[in-house]
Amino acid sequence: MKFRVIKSALVDAVSQVSKAVSSKTTIPILTGIKVTADENGLLLTGSNSDITIQVRVPKRKDDLEQVFVEKLGSVVLPGRIFGDLVRKLPGKEVEWFANEKFQTTIRSETSEFHLNGFDPVEYPRLPMLSTEQLFSVSADTLKTLIRQTGFAVATNEARGVLTGVLMQLEGGVLTCVATDSHRLSRQQAHVEGSEELTLKNVIIPGKSLTELAKTLADYTGIVDIIVAENQILVKTDEWEFYSRLLEGTYPDTNRVIPDGGETELISSTKELLQSVDRASLISRDGRDNVIKWTLKDGKVEVNSAAQDIGSVTEEVIAKVNGPELGISFNARYMMEALRSIESDEIRIQFTGPMRPFLIQPTDREDSLHLIVPIRTR
Amino acid sequence: MKFRVIKSALVDAVSQVSKAVSSKTTIPILTGIKVTADENGLLLTGSNSDITIQVRVPKRKDDLEQVFVEKLGSVVLPGRIFGDLVRKLPGKEVEWFANEKFQTTIRSETSEFHLNGFDPVEYPRLPMLSTEQLFSVSADTLKTLIRQTGFAVATNEARGVLTGVLMQLEGGVLTCVATDSHRLSRQQAHVEGSEELTLKNVIIPGKSLTELAKTLADYTGIVDIIVAENQILVKTDEWEFYSRLLEGTYPDTNRVIPDGGETELISSTKELLQSVDRASLISRDGRDNVIKWTLKDGKVEVNSAAQDIGSVTEEVIAKVNGPELGISFNARYMMEALRSIESDEIRIQFTGPMRPFLIQPTDREDSLHLIVPIRTR
Repeated sequence: MKFRVIKSALVDAVSQVSKAVSSKTTIPILTGIKVTADENGLLLTGSNSDITIQVRVPKRKDDLEQVFVEKLGSVVLPGRIFGDLVRKLPGKEVEWFANEKFQTTIRSETSEFHLNGFDPVEYPRLPMLSTEQLFSVSADTLKTLIRQTGFAVATNEARGVLTGVLMQLEGGVLTCVATDSHRLSRQQAHVEGSEELTLKNVIIPGKSLTELAKTLADYTGIVDIIVAENQILVKTDEWEFYSRLLEGTYPDTNRVIPDGGETELISSTKELLQSVDRASLISRDGRDNVIKWTLKDGKVEVNSAAQDIGSVTEEVIAKVNGPELGISFNARYMMEALRSIESDEIRIQFTGPMRPFLIQPTDREDSLHLIVPIRTR
Repeated sequence: MKFRVIKSALVDAVSQVSKAVSSKTTIPILTGIKVTADENGLLLTGSNSDITIQVRVPKRKDDLEQVFVEKLGSVVLPGRIFGDLVRKLPGKEVEWFANEKFQTTIRSETSEFHLNGFDPVEYPRLPMLSTEQLFSVSADTLKTLIRQTGFAVATNEARGVLTGVLMQLEGGVLTCVATDSHRLSRQQAHVEGSEELTLKNVIIPGKSLTELAKTLADYTGIVDIIVAENQILVKTDEWEFYSRLLEGTYPDTNRVIPDGGETELISSTKELLQSVDRASLISRDGRDNVIKWTLKDGKVEVNSAAQDIGSVTEEVIAKVNGPELGISFNARYMMEALRSIESDEIRIQFTGPMRPFLIQPTDREDSLHLIVPIRTR
């Protein structure tokens, strides 16, 4: 293979695929990045056992030639060194040559690297996914779905399907749900033109979604999503992001979501968050990070105490409807839910001191968070 | 004790003293921050076994009242929680009250904390240092001295005095030296009005200097330095920084510094640094991170090779005087020396392939770095 490429284009592509490359892998070839020169420019691939990212460097971009392919071919280069090397090269253009033994020469100005590459036939093939189950969604919507649910997955690998986010599509509504059984987050979005398609029990690993959010970054266009039996592919014109799916059946969470509540609190998202954040300074070293809310007429009292350290009392102005109530919960769960909400005002509905309560922005109905309270003495 | 204080002033002071507070200490009281309200405002102290930082919050600053002391007193509060708490308090003013059992109430707007404080008599006293050995230096000069030498200390605690920077003062010249026996860095500065004072064998732990540099940060005034038998104090009107000194006798390093060389290289600091940085991508995983320079007429060739990975060749334009020379050395030592040099151009003097070589900026004589080469096959 032989080509020249504008350095900045190569640097961008390498930094994207590097997100999927792990130095800790049981499959040595996956520590590498695969580079292919084809008729359309370059194609870079990085992968680990969970996700694969493939980025296209097209021959032309914005009317500028950026790749000049002289001889087609493919090689796998050690990922960590290759990424740093490309970034640190002098000059604006990179010359690239690989021989039939995959020994690769990378040259830029007076700097010349010789790297021992690997045979690309050893690199795992990407799955060919049938496009039967395809729908499209804006990148912004997808980012919101991830941001509103991704934090609520179980982090202990032993929890199986609960370490993933459930994605369902029915009647043109896309629903994402995550729960670690102590709290639950659900976000919905309308997806135009997908009324015919129904998806159930698509479970994407939470870690894959964290990486997908990084890959989406500032991208604002439309992404295509293709779901196959054990893989999901999210793609744009510039890149493709594959993730494995989790096996197993996600529990039915609809029955745990209460339908309203007896006591209702409406308050400022930011002020509630800040008061919980401060109260948890006292409780965070404790086992459950428990804080207590007492709902009274026109305010919430926030309390937290730890025997050795001390105690804290906060008051937040709030609209409270229904009977007064005292309830204790994990401060971290509350902070993570409140941080994910972009609306200025939230409504929280309580059914009783030991029943899960419902947190929703007041200005939209597509988002909800549920927290299970903690019994205190 | 009882006082009110402008929150931002308290936040700044806490963040300064927190640098000296460690959560890992064998002396429990040192996990705390000592707060004293006296006639002049507040005094905050943080300490670990190596350094102590004391910050003054004066009653007035820039003609604004910032501390209102109603009752003098002192208390020690748990450091980590106290720092976060102060930063996260709502409102612009903080009310503070501590009773005779050191139970402390901190109030700001509708937020009220009760913290269990400790008796300040348990907190170690600061040493009273005689001002006999005092000199003054600009903060910028002190920062340069630290930046040019601090990186060259030995990091293995077993190396004793070599884990510190030697500070000497003689005839109005302040000299700092650090070496780990593979490389050495020396920086000098003229210190006005200290011609009468001579200091020998003052050895400051490298870690203390790293923290001192953070404390100096953007400060641009004059600092006073007081040296006692086993302590050094660096002070300004706003803060005092104490460090213990290392015991033992620092070796005489003057005899290892060569007096010029046979082959001389003059080149761009930045271009040399970048070429070494790239070459070390290939060698950095190896035991010694060895790269090789070949000095020829008008250029330096930079080479590095690792059996499994590959090799790299670089060329950097340089003025070379004297016989051609090939020399191998640790790339990290070269990078750390070159990064510390602010001048655009450097001179390197070599005596032979196995003799230490001397790196100096071409435009100043107060700074030098020395690297011991590595024998290669």
